[in-house]
Amino acid sequence: MEQKKYDLLTLGELLLRLSPPGNDRISTCNVFEKNLGGAELNVAAGVSLLGLHTGMISRIPANSMGEYAKRQILSYGISDRYLAWDSTPEARLGLYYYEYGAAPRKPQVVYDRKNTSMTRMQLSDFGPDLYDSTRCFHTSGITLALNENCRRVGMEMIKAFKEHGALISFDVNFRGNLWTGKEARECIEQILPYVDIFFCSESTAQLTFEKKGDVKSIMKSFTEEYPVSVVASTRRTVHSPKTHSFTSIIYDAKTDTYYQEEPYNNIEVVDRIGSGDAYVAGALYGLLCRKGSCSKAVKFGNAYSAAKNTIPGDLSSMNLQDIRDIIEDHENTGYQSEMKR
Amino acid sequence: MEQKKYDLLTLGELLLRLSPPGNDRISTCNVFEKNLGGAELNVAAGVSLLGLHTGMISRIPANSMGEYAKRQILSYGISDRYLAWDSTPEARLGLYYYEYGAAPRKPQVVYDRKNTSMTRMQLSDFGPDLYDSTRCFHTSGITLALNENCRRVGMEMIKAFKEHGALISFDVNFRGNLWTGKEARECIEQILPYVDIFFCSESTAQLTFEKKGDVKSIMKSFTEEYPVSVVASTRRTVHSPKTHSFTSIIYDAKTDTYYQEEPYNNIEVVDRIGSGDAYVAGALYGLLCRKGSCSKAVKFGNAYSAAKNTIPGDLSSMNLQDIRDIIEDHENTGYQSEMKR
Amino acid sequence: MEQKKYDLLTLGELLLRLSPPGNDRISTCNVFEKNLGGAELNVAAGVSLLGLHTGMISRIPANSMGEYAKRQILSYGISDRYLAWDSTPEARLGLYYYEYGAAPRKPQVVYDRKNTSMTRMQLSDFGPDLYDSTRCFHTSGITLALNENCRRVGMEMIKAFKEHGALISFDVNFRGNLWTGKEARECIEQILPYVDIFFCSESTAQLTFEKKGDVKSIMKSFTEEYPVSVVASTRRTVHSPKTHSFTSIIYDAKTDTYYQEEPYNNIEVVDRIGSGDAYVAGALYGLLCRKGSCSKAVKFGNAYSAAKNTIPGDLSSMNLQDIRDIIEDHENTGYQSEMKR
Amino acid sequence: MEQKKYDLLTLGELLLRLSPPGNDRISTCNVFEKNLGGAELNVAAGVSLLGLHTGMISRIPANSMGEYAKRQILSYGISDRYLAWDSTPEARLGLYYYEYGAAPRKPQVVYDRKNTSMTRMQLSDFGPDLYDSTRCFHTSGITLALNENCRRVGMEMIKAFKEHGALISFDVNFRGNLWTGKEARECIEQILPYVDIFFCSESTAQLTFEKKGDVKSIMKSFTEEYPVSVVASTRRTVHSPKTHSFTSIIYDAKTDTYYQEEPYNNIEVVDRIGSGDAYVAGALYGLLCRKGSCSKAVKFGNAYSAAKNTIPGDLSSMNLQDIRDIIEDHENTGYQSEMKR
Amino acid sequence: MEQKKYDLLTLGELLLRLSPPGNDRISTCNVFEKNLGGAELNVAAGVSLLGLHTGMISRIPANSMGEYAKRQILSYGISDRYLAWDSTPEARLGLYYYEYGAAPRKPQVVYDRKNTSMTRMQLSDFGPDLYDSTRCFHTSGITLALNENCRRVGMEMIKAFKEHGALISFDVNFRGNLWTGKEARECIEQILPYVDIFFCSESTAQLTFEKKGDVKSIMKSFTEEYPVSVVASTRRTVHSPKTHSFTSIIYDAKTDTYYQEEPYNNIEVVDRIGSGDAYVAGALYGLLCRKGSCSKAVKFGNAYSAAKNTIPGDLSSMNLQDIRDIIEDHENTGYQSEMKR
Amino acid sequence: MEQKKYDLLTLGELLLRLSPPGNDRISTCNVFEKNLGGAELNVAAGVSLLGLHTGMISRIPANSMGEYAKRQILSYGISDRYLAWDSTPEARLGLYYYEYGAAPRKPQVVYDRKNTSMTRMQLSDFGPDLYDSTRCFHTSGITLALNENCRRVGMEMIKAFKEHGALISFDVNFRGNLWTGKEARECIEQILPYVDIFFCSESTAQLTFEKKGDVKSIMKSFTEEYPVSVVASTRRTVHSPKTHSFTSIIYDAKTDTYYQEEPYNNIEVVDRIGSGDAYVAGALYGLLCRKGSCSKAVKFGNAYSAAKNTIPGDLSSMNLQDIRDIIEDHENTGYQSEMKR
Repeated sequence: MEQKKYDLLTLGELLLRLSPPGNDRISTCNVFEKNLGGAELNVAAGVSLLGLHTGMISRIPANSMGEYAKRQILSYGISDRYLAWDSTPEARLGLYYYEYGAAPRKPQVVYDRKNTSMTRMQLSDFGPDLYDSTRCFHTSGITLALNENCRRVGMEMIKAFKEHGALISFDVNFRGNLWTGKEARECIEQILPYVDIFFCSESTAQLTFEKKGDVKSIMKSFTEEYPVSVVASTRRTVHSPKTHSFTSIIYDAKTDTYYQEEPYNNIEVVDRIGSGDAYVAGALYGLLCRKGSCSKAVKFGNAYSAAKNTIPGDLSSMNLQDIRDIIEDHENTGYQSEMKR
Repeated sequence: MEQKKYDLLTLGELLLRLSPPGNDRISTCNVFEKNLGGAELNVAAGVSLLGLHTGMISRIPANSMGEYAKRQILSYGISDRYLAWDSTPEARLGLYYYEYGAAPRKPQVVYDRKNTSMTRMQLSDFGPDLYDSTRCFHTSGITLALNENCRRVGMEMIKAFKEHGALISFDVNFRGNLWTGKEARECIEQILPYVDIFFCSESTAQLTFEKKGDVKSIMKSFTEEYPVSVVASTRRTVHSPKTHSFTSIIYDAKTDTYYQEEPYNNIEVVDRIGSGDAYVAGALYGLLCRKGSCSKAVKFGNAYSAAKNTIPGDLSSMNLQDIRDIIEDHENTGYQSEMKR
Repeated sequence: MEQKKYDLLTLGELLLRLSPPGNDRISTCNVFEKNLGGAELNVAAGVSLLGLHTGMISRIPANSMGEYAKRQILSYGISDRYLAWDSTPEARLGLYYYEYGAAPRKPQVVYDRKNTSMTRMQLSDFGPDLYDSTRCFHTSGITLALNENCRRVGMEMIKAFKEHGALISFDVNFRGNLWTGKEARECIEQILPYVDIFFCSESTAQLTFEKKGDVKSIMKSFTEEYPVSVVASTRRTVHSPKTHSFTSIIYDAKTDTYYQEEPYNNIEVVDRIGSGDAYVAGALYGLLCRKGSCSKAVKFGNAYSAAKNTIPGDLSSMNLQDIRDIIEDHENTGYQSEMKR
Repeated sequence: MEQKKYDLLTLGELLLRLSPPGNDRISTCNVFEKNLGGAELNVAAGVSLLGLHTGMISRIPANSMGEYAKRQILSYGISDRYLAWDSTPEARLGLYYYEYGAAPRKPQVVYDRKNTSMTRMQLSDFGPDLYDSTRCFHTSGITLALNENCRRVGMEMIKAFKEHGALISFDVNFRGNLWTGKEARECIEQILPYVDIFFCSESTAQLTFEKKGDVKSIMKSFTEEYPVSVVASTRRTVHSPKTHSFTSIIYDAKTDTYYQEEPYNNIEVVDRIGSGDAYVAGALYGLLCRKGSCSKAVKFGNAYSAAKNTIPGDLSSMNLQDIRDIIEDHENTGYQSEMKR
Repeated sequence: MEQKKYDLLTLGELLLRLSPPGNDRISTCNVFEKNLGGAELNVAAGVSLLGLHTGMISRIPANSMGEYAKRQILSYGISDRYLAWDSTPEARLGLYYYEYGAAPRKPQVVYDRKNTSMTRMQLSDFGPDLYDSTRCFHTSGITLALNENCRRVGMEMIKAFKEHGALISFDVNFRGNLWTGKEARECIEQILPYVDIFFCSESTAQLTFEKKGDVKSIMKSFTEEYPVSVVASTRRTVHSPKTHSFTSIIYDAKTDTYYQEEPYNNIEVVDRIGSGDAYVAGALYGLLCRKGSCSKAVKFGNAYSAAKNTIPGDLSSMNLQDIRDIIEDHENTGYQSEMKR
Repeated sequence: MEQKKYDLLTLGELLLRLSPPGNDRISTCNVFEKNLGGAELNVAAGVSLLGLHTGMISRIPANSMGEYAKRQILSYGISDRYLAWDSTPEARLGLYYYEYGAAPRKPQVVYDRKNTSMTRMQLSDFGPDLYDSTRCFHTSGITLALNENCRRVGMEMIKAFKEHGALISFDVNFRGNLWTGKEARECIEQILPYVDIFFCSESTAQLTFEKKGDVKSIMKSFTEEYPVSVVASTRRTVHSPKTHSFTSIIYDAKTDTYYQEEPYNNIEVVDRIGSGDAYVAGALYGLLCRKGSCSKAVKFGNAYSAAKNTIPGDLSSMNLQDIRDIIEDHENTGYQSEMKR
């Protein structure tokens, strides 16, 4: 399996994010900060920054905004080989507006992501070498929820990658504005037979999958009902829009073991968008890197997510050395230098 | 009374506010952020954003800065019908410089608001239809303190509006750099016989009106000495320039009832200027809206003030739905979504 | 006719414009400058800034971006009474990206304006008082080209306003990316029987209406074939993206007279978007103001358009005094002060 | 005379300048760029940057804005020894708003400079060592026009400096918004008996002093009527707000000689404010430097003025080497390098 | 030859460029715009944007600034495979400060590029597969002039690439602040025996190589003295810092033919840095693309250079479609659309 | 001693600091904020802002960056008399990149300060009047650690100033990336015989000087081993990158007394760089001002340091009144106004 061209390919939509600077508001700001985002992009970017080979499967408009998206992807070291270009007059890049919060004002998202180039993606947009080129394939519930077409294409891709021997990673990432819990559950239950690594938060498990019990038993239950190997579940505590704490549990079915560590407390949140995806990135790195393990996955997942909260934009910019420093500081109970010099 | 053209007219000065970005200082910054402010403007803007019809009575220079002020006022949906334009060579818009604080450095204001167009306002600047056009008239001690002329014109306006059946709302808003406590008390005591809704903080009541006793008894005393119907008193706790808590009490003389609720604690302060005026706006909305009540006044007042602290500039931008969300979250003791999607 | 509430109502889509600062590019810039635009908004804004009463008929999303659009409209003194709010999940504000040019690089527009809230507008979105409230109604070919629905609603509105005695103003504003020349011609020929004031450039007349002959005879021919009273035709000479010249001819059918004046030469172009609409605004002001005339129309039209090119954003900010100064300087052949002090 | 502490002291008001970025407008911009200006400050700064010892005589508010002014003055190497601090409640720094132009829109200035700390300046604000400390004293008609008090104090200072042996330099700098031509003439005629170096443009000489004839004979006439030694007169040709040409003539009475050179043509104007003062600075440097002469004055004056037009803000930042390079390029008719590396 | 991994590898230093915004100055600006530059990077970026496979051979510090450089390189689609990382304490990224000009003020460069990581590059920093991986190798005189070590390594690389069958492209790019003309000539004469494509301006040929005669005969002489196949020579006319004209001649030795076309006149210069390198990029693309030719080289070279002048930063962002549009407009003598929609 | 020209001269390197805005990162930001820094500059600036006469001894490049440094120094009222200008081709201003932190991401510094103009400083760069011109001379371990040459020159200066009767102030300011603890100790032990005022943190004393015992006994030990009069030791508690607490102890050998006060708790850190130097500045002011004392030193040192943390950039901008207000608030246990009006 080591001989594949990519360690990870992710399938997902690329979105323009427009945000007012500082604590200004969408309705009154004068400029928008411009970022590229998208759950599966965030995952690919993180894994790439940590040193593995990744690529992005997506569909973007053949105009200057598509150029923008491509340039951003390349800058993270992600391959653009599987970007399909939409040259039709309907071509568009989805976008969303994001407003930072400050207690008691919550952060706010306004979506404008319907009828995008991505929603008209076809299997035939991508070359025949696609399925054989990666060790691991990742997507999330967001992609499946975009529309009927994406759901169909996404599910076919999952099956095709599985057939070609790729590990299948899936993050539920439930979004109530894209589909209902019932729709999500029915769709994901069709996918779970193919999934190896499953990301699902406790509350999603309870609300969407109608699971009962504590988080550990819920996690285990997925591995009992489906041939899932690894289940990861995060817990974020929101003290205020500017202060969070974060931790996670990873369950390894093969050894029937739960992995966890001390939470990252009192994170000084600069930009919380993408921190869930950063967790997935860190965890996948922990599993896919040389001598990967669930123990590494929980450490890298937690650290990568905690650190992402301190970085403006959807995407992390932490490389391997950065994140090793974060982990070392987190585990260090003695003297802490105040600064990296 | 419902047939009047405006729900609220406010009388006050419009000020240019110039502030260094972020935590930069007045003496060293390179650009100034440009905002319009003024206590009574802040009140009119809030009530307008919440959905009532408002107008602003003021006097501004007939130059590009007056144009700026007019455009800002219109953008909040406030009527510019009663803006008088000053075409004399002395015409000027008052201004102040505002520097944000960070413990142990306090926020700082430098005023440059003498000899402004407003200070030469005359009753004859406004048409004869003025007094008949509104359900409620509001001004504050700042307007009366500007100079002798403003005091005289302001007091005549209060009387004329009262005669034409408008509710009179008055906020003491004591500023030691504009007049002495003694001057303020003597002036306001002449006004109180006309006031229906009276805003006065506990410390102002004690220091300026030399009232003794707890805040509730002081509030009640105003309604006993004068024909005031409603007294509102706010309490702000300043943990640091970046963290405040806020609450208020409203006393309804007719029913001899005090209204209060849980404070908004640990507000993440982005810009505290105008949050007192936002309280007045929320409270007046609570009283003047359909099915208005003191109970609504305290809820909307507290929420509007707390939320204002999170918004850059003197003026709020929270509309009715925004503030209902804040109130709902404040009253909700169960699960809280982290974000508005 | 003077007793109507508005002097001008315009029907058209509101668009968010996102542009890179300075000469940066869409694909590489880091922030976008945020402006509101739209051909018919630009017209209403200009006429409002010049002092007449205007309103905008449009449909916008019931979210923060709609709030933004509303605030901008209000800031120009345009009434928001006929803004319909779209609360459906499909609600969106159309947008476009605009990149400034520098020879030999041309300015560039990327549109993302399909499936917007506007395209689902219905006659029933607006109250029954609509048609009786204005002296003049204006729209352009862009509105009719948006989709089949807008074409139908737009045409019905034109007829209804005509029936209620409003002057009908129409600007062809041909955009090859919205419809073909043939579609445009067939549609506009159905409208011309209702049009009083017709804006059509020479090249559009030739290419779209397949007219032959010089511009003057073409202009006259419209008034011979249809009951059009006034035809206005502009001429822009593009020396480079940063230097244009501009002038126009207006034909008055009643007196069979052509009005023109010296061109504005060597305009230092800061932002050329909206300068055609500014021409319409100036011309309509010239016709609709007290003692309006075609002679005023050509002066105000040319001056308003020339001046708009020097102002960033789609919308002008020139008021009546500003534009009178421009006209006076343009007509003045003697000493010119260098600066307005 | 060489032993004096300063080469030049100037008397004048310090003003805050607020300008919209780029071609934005005063009425619509979101931030103001912050600069310090003032005609006599501009002169002192230029002479200081060129290497002589200068100081500024002025009066500023004892608050953060005064601090700002002081810091700026120090950064140009100008002494703050003769800055008087105003601690009264009336203290204020004058200001003006400046909007850049683009043809056909002219640049625009809005003043707010009445009742400033400067207007209440007294001779007693400055120590007794003032008059003995400088080789040359410079002020302009602006200072004398501020108000009656400034006129009186300014004239007394001129006489006192003259008595102590300083050269007196005076720039008419006529501003029609501060006083009438008649007031200016009557005042300046009282001063001319003390003036050694006189700056007066051709048009000012004609309009204000009602002089007839060509510029050279007018210049000479001043030296015949008064004991003036040197008269300098500039000529600016405004092709558009973004393109000017500039040159000057200097007349030396002692040798009855006129000095001039090729104009600086097609200056790419970035910010024209202060370029007249930069001329005075360059010319004074040319006269006051080691081996100073009228020939140097005309070269340095023209070059310093031309170069100032390319620098944002009121104040130049060209040092001696910079300006020598400009002069060398201007005089060089052969190969020109494109860039300074 | 088509089977090689890269179409072009370039060897050169990566430099941080810091420039004041707009026309601000190095000595007074408050922020620096941050760009990556370097002559050979600019070439690789252009060829990559036009669609060929490129890589960069360089050495950068193993810190956040190196990360920055790497991310930028990747964003242009350039391979980072041959970036060597310097982890020593001496590691540094060279930098320069760039100030835009405005007549009569010239643009200005201040270098700080000594002792950089690049200057300590070794052949052993790069893998053994290097020489076999590319169809064409390009470097410039700047790389050879950095220091003795770079000269040695650069010359050895040229020979090794030549031996492995790569085309050798070389741009003299003479910089008087790095070496003398004599040093340059002696070094380059040692290289010319290996060069296939030679870029040398007329003035450099005359001054550095002491060639006599007109530009065409000089160009031809290089192919007579050395086995050079193609010689390209550019001509830039600097009307002012903001207006240039540009053209070039290419000589093909095999067919003894000169290729040229109409100049690009009156280019509106936004940023002229890198426009010479953009010429090399366009010309190399014209030679290396499918059906490449000298005729294509001159068209793409001129267009790419002219267009680069309109783009801020050292690097172009024009892709193949962009540049085809520029060429088409340049060759089109009929109607020109004003804008790309 | 009061008759000396300066109260304080400091010797040290001037550094350009480049920092990403807000919480952006070095590797991804688009602009750098530009500041001047340097430990000894920070000290001189603070003492100058507090009202004493200071000057800076340093060596800077004779280019635009040197101009920048000079202008900044002058703006703080620091004399530039002892700035030596480096006109060699090797001239360069050192620089460093600074990235703000947010828990769990630490602040980060990347240095690029080798081979700077400062490192080639010679005693002969400065005039013979240097040693006689100041009451106090200050430098720090950073200067001695720059290179062998700086160490030699620095030590000779210390001795020469001591001989001429100046007080010698020295701050260990240990930086592990410049030298080892052993190198530092050996060097500083040679200097201690000349030092009057010694700044050394507890941890530095323990780690570098291998001192045992509590901080008070360590402080005293320096005065026993060497003729040091005053030892000051600070303690910073880093709760997170955005929240610190700070206090200090000063030991007066003559009276064998320790001075301390309540810590400044929960400082809202905006920019922590330079806050250690601000402590030195405040403490030196406390000792050197009229009626100076160790008691004043501890108050001004703590307040100046605490306040510096709230100011962006390396340098404070707090003047004497600002800092007196901070001290008064710190000592005030009663009612606190929220704002300075």
